[in-house]
Amino acid sequence: MEIMKAVAFRGQAGPGRLAIEERPKPTPRAGQAVIRITTTTICGTDVHIVKGEYPVRDGLVLGHEPVGVIDQLGEGLEPEYHVGQRVIVGAITPCGQCFYCFNGAHSQCGGPLGGWRFGNTIDGAWAEYLLVPDARANLAPIPEGLTDEQVVLVPDIFSTGLGGAESGGVKIGDAVAIFAQGPIGLCATLGARLLGAALIIGIDAVSERLEVSKRFGANVVINYRDQDPVAAIKRLTGGRGVDVAIEALGRQETFENALRSIRPGGTLSSLGVYSGKLAVPYEAIYAGLGDQRIVTTLCPGGKERMRRLMEMVAQQRVDLSPLVTHQFALDSIDEAFDLFSHQRDGVMKVALHPALPPARQLTAGARELEVGSPA
Amino acid sequence: MEIMKAVAFRGQAGPGRLAIEERPKPTPRAGQAVIRITTTTICGTDVHIVKGEYPVRDGLVLGHEPVGVIDQLGEGLEPEYHVGQRVIVGAITPCGQCFYCFNGAHSQCGGPLGGWRFGNTIDGAWAEYLLVPDARANLAPIPEGLTDEQVVLVPDIFSTGLGGAESGGVKIGDAVAIFAQGPIGLCATLGARLLGAALIIGIDAVSERLEVSKRFGANVVINYRDQDPVAAIKRLTGGRGVDVAIEALGRQETFENALRSIRPGGTLSSLGVYSGKLAVPYEAIYAGLGDQRIVTTLCPGGKERMRRLMEMVAQQRVDLSPLVTHQFALDSIDEAFDLFSHQRDGVMKVALHPALPPARQLTAGARELEVGSPA
Amino acid sequence: MEIMKAVAFRGQAGPGRLAIEERPKPTPRAGQAVIRITTTTICGTDVHIVKGEYPVRDGLVLGHEPVGVIDQLGEGLEPEYHVGQRVIVGAITPCGQCFYCFNGAHSQCGGPLGGWRFGNTIDGAWAEYLLVPDARANLAPIPEGLTDEQVVLVPDIFSTGLGGAESGGVKIGDAVAIFAQGPIGLCATLGARLLGAALIIGIDAVSERLEVSKRFGANVVINYRDQDPVAAIKRLTGGRGVDVAIEALGRQETFENALRSIRPGGTLSSLGVYSGKLAVPYEAIYAGLGDQRIVTTLCPGGKERMRRLMEMVAQQRVDLSPLVTHQFALDSIDEAFDLFSHQRDGVMKVALHPALPPARQLTAGARELEVGSPA
Amino acid sequence: MEIMKAVAFRGQAGPGRLAIEERPKPTPRAGQAVIRITTTTICGTDVHIVKGEYPVRDGLVLGHEPVGVIDQLGEGLEPEYHVGQRVIVGAITPCGQCFYCFNGAHSQCGGPLGGWRFGNTIDGAWAEYLLVPDARANLAPIPEGLTDEQVVLVPDIFSTGLGGAESGGVKIGDAVAIFAQGPIGLCATLGARLLGAALIIGIDAVSERLEVSKRFGANVVINYRDQDPVAAIKRLTGGRGVDVAIEALGRQETFENALRSIRPGGTLSSLGVYSGKLAVPYEAIYAGLGDQRIVTTLCPGGKERMRRLMEMVAQQRVDLSPLVTHQFALDSIDEAFDLFSHQRDGVMKVALHPALPPARQLTAGARELEVGSPA
Repeated sequence: MEIMKAVAFRGQAGPGRLAIEERPKPTPRAGQAVIRITTTTICGTDVHIVKGEYPVRDGLVLGHEPVGVIDQLGEGLEPEYHVGQRVIVGAITPCGQCFYCFNGAHSQCGGPLGGWRFGNTIDGAWAEYLLVPDARANLAPIPEGLTDEQVVLVPDIFSTGLGGAESGGVKIGDAVAIFAQGPIGLCATLGARLLGAALIIGIDAVSERLEVSKRFGANVVINYRDQDPVAAIKRLTGGRGVDVAIEALGRQETFENALRSIRPGGTLSSLGVYSGKLAVPYEAIYAGLGDQRIVTTLCPGGKERMRRLMEMVAQQRVDLSPLVTHQFALDSIDEAFDLFSHQRDGVMKVALHPALPPARQLTAGARELEVGSPA
Repeated sequence: MEIMKAVAFRGQAGPGRLAIEERPKPTPRAGQAVIRITTTTICGTDVHIVKGEYPVRDGLVLGHEPVGVIDQLGEGLEPEYHVGQRVIVGAITPCGQCFYCFNGAHSQCGGPLGGWRFGNTIDGAWAEYLLVPDARANLAPIPEGLTDEQVVLVPDIFSTGLGGAESGGVKIGDAVAIFAQGPIGLCATLGARLLGAALIIGIDAVSERLEVSKRFGANVVINYRDQDPVAAIKRLTGGRGVDVAIEALGRQETFENALRSIRPGGTLSSLGVYSGKLAVPYEAIYAGLGDQRIVTTLCPGGKERMRRLMEMVAQQRVDLSPLVTHQFALDSIDEAFDLFSHQRDGVMKVALHPALPPARQLTAGARELEVGSPA
Repeated sequence: MEIMKAVAFRGQAGPGRLAIEERPKPTPRAGQAVIRITTTTICGTDVHIVKGEYPVRDGLVLGHEPVGVIDQLGEGLEPEYHVGQRVIVGAITPCGQCFYCFNGAHSQCGGPLGGWRFGNTIDGAWAEYLLVPDARANLAPIPEGLTDEQVVLVPDIFSTGLGGAESGGVKIGDAVAIFAQGPIGLCATLGARLLGAALIIGIDAVSERLEVSKRFGANVVINYRDQDPVAAIKRLTGGRGVDVAIEALGRQETFENALRSIRPGGTLSSLGVYSGKLAVPYEAIYAGLGDQRIVTTLCPGGKERMRRLMEMVAQQRVDLSPLVTHQFALDSIDEAFDLFSHQRDGVMKVALHPALPPARQLTAGARELEVGSPA
Repeated sequence: MEIMKAVAFRGQAGPGRLAIEERPKPTPRAGQAVIRITTTTICGTDVHIVKGEYPVRDGLVLGHEPVGVIDQLGEGLEPEYHVGQRVIVGAITPCGQCFYCFNGAHSQCGGPLGGWRFGNTIDGAWAEYLLVPDARANLAPIPEGLTDEQVVLVPDIFSTGLGGAESGGVKIGDAVAIFAQGPIGLCATLGARLLGAALIIGIDAVSERLEVSKRFGANVVINYRDQDPVAAIKRLTGGRGVDVAIEALGRQETFENALRSIRPGGTLSSLGVYSGKLAVPYEAIYAGLGDQRIVTTLCPGGKERMRRLMEMVAQQRVDLSPLVTHQFALDSIDEAFDLFSHQRDGVMKVALHPALPPARQLTAGARELEVGSPA
């Protein structure tokens, strides 16, 4: 039995709840694959898990954003795939063959949230090797010439953010407001632009993020500490409100503001993860008579989704690599997690590399953010 | 100046807030028409208004479900229309030419809820004559051979109920649950059937309405006084929940139950009129990660909607006339309103006739309900 | 090695091109299943194959409409499935995991027409046993209480016909014309009704089929030998044409008539299998300026499609069993094929039973056709 | 009666079929407006008309791309509009109130091609003044700060080209091929980009247009004189073909190539104006079994469409003004028409100005084409 290094969640372990451990290297069964992880990253959801706000089992290997190289293939995957091939896998790994997948709800594969397996119900990508279930549905070869950094945000951040714009039904000439401009919100902003919105309004309280927002497609940015965003949005849209608002934080306040920002007949597309009761003021939905929609979206996955999004990168329509502001060895997970979870040093996303020697941090600070071709 | 009889809302008048008054008969300007009302009806919304729960101006003529005969045509309506033609007009009268109409939100014509004019912002159908704005967009000729009773529920009840099933995106083979089986809920049940649902579940607390529900398309009915509807629905759907739930009452309880009844990836289509805050328990929306939709719908109007729905009646695909359980002279509005608002005598809907002599009530009690071809 | 009986296509064998042969009983690999066929049927496509009009390899076992019992399960299918379970499998067997499946074109799984495997690229259902690829995506348990005859038309005929109405985008109140009323056309007619069409026009030249058409949902039938169907359709629709026309034959004449029958903004949904060049008269498409759509559809498959359609049968919304007019032992394939291909004795569809003794024909002639609840 | 200058089609007049004539200045009735034309242009359709290939009545004033200032308003248009307001009107002027408009086929307003009125069934924009029917549905105020040149291509070219991409259902990550890169094809290319296509392939035979194509969003251009475009497209898409092909010329060859370029499950979106019979080779549609779509589109119009497209200009998401390569006085229509119809001097589109003195041509030659922010 081969041994590998992995970062496990240890629920009982107090503040330092992440443990670097030795694990058996997985072996693929029929239809499965094992990939050697070259790059992965930390997601806001991982922060929730480590804080104990989203329960997972003790000892689970976390991480759901894998970039790597095929190491072993189970029965039935050749010749479509071959060992040594560079691939990514979506954060969500649908089987493509169940009730939910056939009904187009691939992220709910097998049941509620069922498509989210890595670092949730099975061991994830913070390890040297990753076992990929339903590999034929999920291994997505990386186009020639793209680096790990160019694609590491595709499995979750880009797919989720863009998904929010898609679920919102953004159309040519729409006015769209995006509440919160963290990585997901920025990708939703980019998504609104990619789908043809005209007026794109980015809302946040951090002025640096609002600057980035402009580079990702916002025509107008609103710092909600300076002004009431709902009133500002109404002013910008002739009193009507936006066609689509995207919530990218998961709080009552942003949810409610987003709802109040949409016009009659408009759509609130929600990406946030909520806790507690959400209140829907009846006047904000015109007593139920406003012909409005509220839509929630879990990150779309599957190899074709990954292929399409990487094709956007390969064709130079988007460049997400500037969001990767920091790089760490996987062994430095504590340091990386600390930086990311406290949003220090202008961090947007960190890249984690299992093969790097422990002490090595590739970049000391934030790179200058540049988005080559945000649309 | 000609005089006509009309039933006005008198906000200050105490319990008897409906007054039969004399009014000037309206005269059409360019693009408008006047129709002589032959039949109209009372809607649950009218009950809200009369109770003071939905504010309208003092003196407004109520009623938004007009069946009649063209009496006068303003400039620009001939030869498409002619005096003496039998027509209905939708409860909602979109102009077809504004921002909202061009964006497909016809019921929000001109602004929030703006398409609802009759008995809300302009004088309505409880009168001998009705002025129809944007008549070219709203006069819908009645197909030869159909009676007033066969079409009087088309302007609102049928269009709204069916609209709930349409907004829910009901598809072939779907499982659909409809919460509340009043006239709107029954038409939503019928709508689910017309759109090809397989398993249709009707929920109410009144056993007579559940019997009618079966005739309108329900395969299974649930009396929520006897059992928990959410648990029952889960049992009927292999633990998953329905593809679409339709809320047809406007209460927190039915909204929440409807939400809990839908599967991941499912849709809650809301028809109810709400007051106060709606609470959305976060676990009922899977913390925002369930790929679900909540959609609200205001009655679709316009002459083409009316034409399509009357064509369903003319081709004998639906027969709504059994829902018209009682008939009154408009002069007997107090009696009719009392019966309807207290749901006495098995009443579903009452027909009001301005031309009938005051004392005359056509039918003494409920007809046996029969739905000829509910699908 | 176990031996089974199967009916193979023998391309070189002259008029009697079907041979009853002994074959090795298949063995399932990981993800595959073997079912024992209890009932199957003959499709018009099989007639094309036997006539040499659609090429398949010599020795192929034909048949793509399987009803049976699970005999063996490859790795990974338990406990979802178990031996002895009654199932159907769609004529089309998508994998759910390829480029085409993820893009919603399941019937094109793997490449052009790639989802159609049985009796086309792999051995089919005219045999005692059938090997099912991608079984997790394709085995559909038969609801308790349904007979083989009630579901044998689900794998192809019902799914295809209904698919034509769905691809046409039939909406509530639509006028729909269906060209040709063979089994596929009848199911398209039924599909138009299930989706809420108001005026449904069935067209054929065989008066018996036009009678059946009425029972499947047609309000009006047109015998094109008696009158020009395009002119008749225009008359029935106020000069405009239908919203949707469905072509269910595969000839230039029906294609062109269907095209000429749709209104500006309308849809031609094509189900036919064509040969040679189709001509599109430019005036029939308004020189390209009529905002029209032409859509082709290959039978939708996959277990969820099958589940939904069987649920329509189980909930008594459709009854297709009357279309099964004749029953034969599989050993009597020559007799059955002769009857079916020459459309003798009022045949609509024949049921074939591998387990029946050779000489036995269950029904001597056509049953009286009855469609219990066509909508 | 006031007199105005207008350019009329004189069918009998030989080569010089355009006559500058004096006409009564129009007067608006209820719901109509008169605008003073400041800028208009020549369309390929006008060339067809002048050549006698598309019949219009003798004496008709041509031109369907109006930019101007409101001169007079009929009853019912104030205060929404006011005299002196700068507006554009779409080439297509839907009423918003008829069968077709309510069914979403606004360009077929009133009947086949009925929304195209200007320069087709009523006097058009090549005049000092233009009568606008259904003005409430069609007058679109120009956002502050935009010049005539920035918006003159919105009424037809941009709306049509973009409409081709929209009708094709272009989605994020799609591969799209556009056949012909004239002004319409270029705007379809831009449309594919605005909707999120990844790989965009422009095809033409004129190398200058292929250069422009790259600036409008094409990643790859194909000169079909140098290579077979279908084979090249298959190579670029892993043998599959594109998701969407857009035909922007109106010839059998481009139509057929476009059809052969799409993958199974793909869409051919046709913008061309055809004459004669179109042939559809059966193998190009996989005998009718390829799950493909063919869609035709007539320019979308109406004030909201115009508003949205001008908003794209105002928000600097598109800049179409570089396509306006030449400027003329309306009095120089013969010279302008000659240049445009023979595609001399690198002409893309010419601007015509009724108020300019006859001899004046603003620009002697083609400006350097620059597209500021094609996406």
